[in-house]
Amino acid sequence: MECYELQLYSYASFKDALAAGSSSPARQKLSQLKWVSRPTKLRLCTWKACARKAGGRSLDVEGDQNQKKNEEGPLKGLAPLVVVGSANADIYVEIDRLPAPGETIAAHAGRTLPGGKGANQAACAAHLSHPTFFVGQVGEDAHGNLLRQSLRTYGVNLEYLNSVTEPTGHAVVMLQPGGQNSIIIVGGANVSWTRTKNTSSHFSPHIQQLICGAGAILLQREIPDIVNIEAAKIACSANVPVILDVGGADTPIPEEFLQYVSVLSPNETELARLTGAPVNTIEDCIQAARQCQKMLFGP
Amino acid sequence: MECYELQLYSYASFKDALAAGSSSPARQKLSQLKWVSRPTKLRLCTWKACARKAGGRSLDVEGDQNQKKNEEGPLKGLAPLVVVGSANADIYVEIDRLPAPGETIAAHAGRTLPGGKGANQAACAAHLSHPTFFVGQVGEDAHGNLLRQSLRTYGVNLEYLNSVTEPTGHAVVMLQPGGQNSIIIVGGANVSWTRTKNTSSHFSPHIQQLICGAGAILLQREIPDIVNIEAAKIACSANVPVILDVGGADTPIPEEFLQYVSVLSPNETELARLTGAPVNTIEDCIQAARQCQKMLFGP
Repeated sequence: MECYELQLYSYASFKDALAAGSSSPARQKLSQLKWVSRPTKLRLCTWKACARKAGGRSLDVEGDQNQKKNEEGPLKGLAPLVVVGSANADIYVEIDRLPAPGETIAAHAGRTLPGGKGANQAACAAHLSHPTFFVGQVGEDAHGNLLRQSLRTYGVNLEYLNSVTEPTGHAVVMLQPGGQNSIIIVGGANVSWTRTKNTSSHFSPHIQQLICGAGAILLQREIPDIVNIEAAKIACSANVPVILDVGGADTPIPEEFLQYVSVLSPNETELARLTGAPVNTIEDCIQAARQCQKMLFGP
Repeated sequence: MECYELQLYSYASFKDALAAGSSSPARQKLSQLKWVSRPTKLRLCTWKACARKAGGRSLDVEGDQNQKKNEEGPLKGLAPLVVVGSANADIYVEIDRLPAPGETIAAHAGRTLPGGKGANQAACAAHLSHPTFFVGQVGEDAHGNLLRQSLRTYGVNLEYLNSVTEPTGHAVVMLQPGGQNSIIIVGGANVSWTRTKNTSSHFSPHIQQLICGAGAILLQREIPDIVNIEAAKIACSANVPVILDVGGADTPIPEEFLQYVSVLSPNETELARLTGAPVNTIEDCIQAARQCQKMLFGP
């Protein structure tokens, strides 16, 4: 079985990238970010270097030769895509060098864009006209407003985007010459999930119902594992495919989590970290992907 | 003539500081920021270590013994205070250490608060019930909304707060253990002032009229000197006192600017930089303040 990586794009620069050629500044910018590796085509999913099954059923997803089948991916028809995950304000500052302790320096430029792996996935899917719900948490602050407004513009259903007292998650991305980026991440609302009193669940009955009726759910690792595991378990119990973007926390993925995952989607770095194997060539990647398959489904 | 420093407070933590004692976390936080030196009393102005005149008239402002007179400061009765200056989103992140180039680290906490020396002055003055206008620029973005909303809450008149296409000015403040702060400043809207086509002025006729009718104008050095100089010149021509908070750019203050300044307000560090003299004792400060007076008014 061939294995392909799930690629979703930074929706903040999505329009620019669509409008321009592959050498556009928007794309070049994108390619600087570790979690957007080699954006080549703007489709919901291409599959590369990932191991997959879908709700226990065997799905034959083939290579790039079969674009149409690829584009369908593991979705159950037009049932909505439910993204459970992170929403972040990404604060980019362009600097010559990092400041020393106690030092104040001026940036060349700076801009704050909506981001977060979960919100990016949701915006991208909705932008591609698939009905998409985002289940996540933002603060009652300016960054929360930014995310709500942006996701709404892309057509994401925000009925289950919760507002909490913690600040919206954010990341300060310090862009340095030569493409070196230093990043400071503030978890905030993304890491402050609590269980509801009555059900001891992180999700309301309505959200549980939504997940059970989904075409697939998309997860990443920027919210607590325990929340992801619960979402994956609910989906799995209803035979809904669970797609996990490995990006985010670099701690080992709990075994309990892996058992519910239908599609595991690492980029090159994450694949290397997951398997401890080299990923320098396509052959390496295929080998490592087979190792991932064993992790998920046994030998 | 005794000279005193103008102290205005970070309005973001203003309410907390009001509600709590001097040992409150809000105050401790405030005192970490170099531009809020020793917040002691919540008044519009206390005078220390600054040289002053007001619209060419000699005003006898005495020491702390004469609080009432101090509080009146150089204002012309209840004519409005007009702050021309900077508005900033201050993005605080609490970290153990600075990241290395290429490294991603997690912060303990983070929060984005309204700030900028100009906006702080305006919010503080309005909060003390003095009619206050803020003349400045913010971007059409989440941080701009944050500033508008916050300044409005404090009762600042925002009729002349301009929205521009550049991002709202912001500062990333990386708080490290032991009170070491590293700061990255993005000028954005604060440094993108343009002249109007018809008048070759940075200010509309309405704003010019506003300045001419003001009780005093407050300036800082977080917007271009050329804009400050024009505001000071307009004020001076109408005998309106010009109060300059020296904080912001650490380049020498242009002589053309100084000739219009009625009150020069440096903190200790700025006073030392301006004069090249030590500021370790009260006597040092008085000596340095006299030097500032000479800078402004000659020997």
